[in-house]
Amino acid sequence: MLTNVEHIGIAVKDILASNNLFTKLFNVAPYKSESVESEGVTTSFFKINSTKVELLEATSPDSAIAKFIEKRGEGIHHIAFEVDNILLEMQRLEEEGFVLLNKEPKQGADNKLVCFLHPKGTNGVLIELCQERV
Amino acid sequence: MLTNVEHIGIAVKDILASNNLFTKLFNVAPYKSESVESEGVTTSFFKINSTKVELLEATSPDSAIAKFIEKRGEGIHHIAFEVDNILLEMQRLEEEGFVLLNKEPKQGADNKLVCFLHPKGTNGVLIELCQERV
Repeated sequence: MLTNVEHIGIAVKDILASNNLFTKLFNVAPYKSESVESEGVTTSFFKINSTKVELLEATSPDSAIAKFIEKRGEGIHHIAFEVDNILLEMQRLEEEGFVLLNKEPKQGADNKLVCFLHPKGTNGVLIELCQERV
Repeated sequence: MLTNVEHIGIAVKDILASNNLFTKLFNVAPYKSESVESEGVTTSFFKINSTKVELLEATSPDSAIAKFIEKRGEGIHHIAFEVDNILLEMQRLEEEGFVLLNKEPKQGADNKLVCFLHPKGTNGVLIELCQERV
């Protein structure tokens, strides 16, 4: 089951400027920043009730975020849903016909194991499944 | 204050097909459907913890959803944040330099008063403020 919208990921060009902008919008500052070298991104997180907004800036021109911004401009990049058991959920969704972008869970930001679904199978929406690492 | 991610709006071409797709994804059916004639859309809603996913299909070629799909294809269209007092929040955000797409709250789906912020001022993200009508 997808139990919660864990976060909404937004691709930005300049994370410091966007931290200021979203701090004005939410009237609260990001509670943490984190780099994920394997994904070539720097991130910052805002907490809104049971969901987070994650800003993502590319640190490498090869990263998915750099390519997304080049193609579509800044904007909403993905929605991440919390799952209790990522392996079971990956298996269930593959059986339902969804295409997994990684066949094994991988390390994401915020101490999570993550898996992305191909947006061609989800009406153009890039969906991330994530499970807190224990 | 923006107190909750009230919903995430996804623009789709065929809401019946997408209802089936997202029912498989979430393992739960939409709990309601609603047309908003003033916006030229048919919508359906899925509940995920404290947030909803709203699918939107255009019922008119002039609607914002039809234009969005023509330009960008299907995908995430907007994020809606719950506010306690939409008039106060509109005033606060305008003073912070955000551009309101409607100067007065208007009637949205799901019995809400809504206001949209111009995405040029929010890193390409179309943001909706919404307050439950009492």
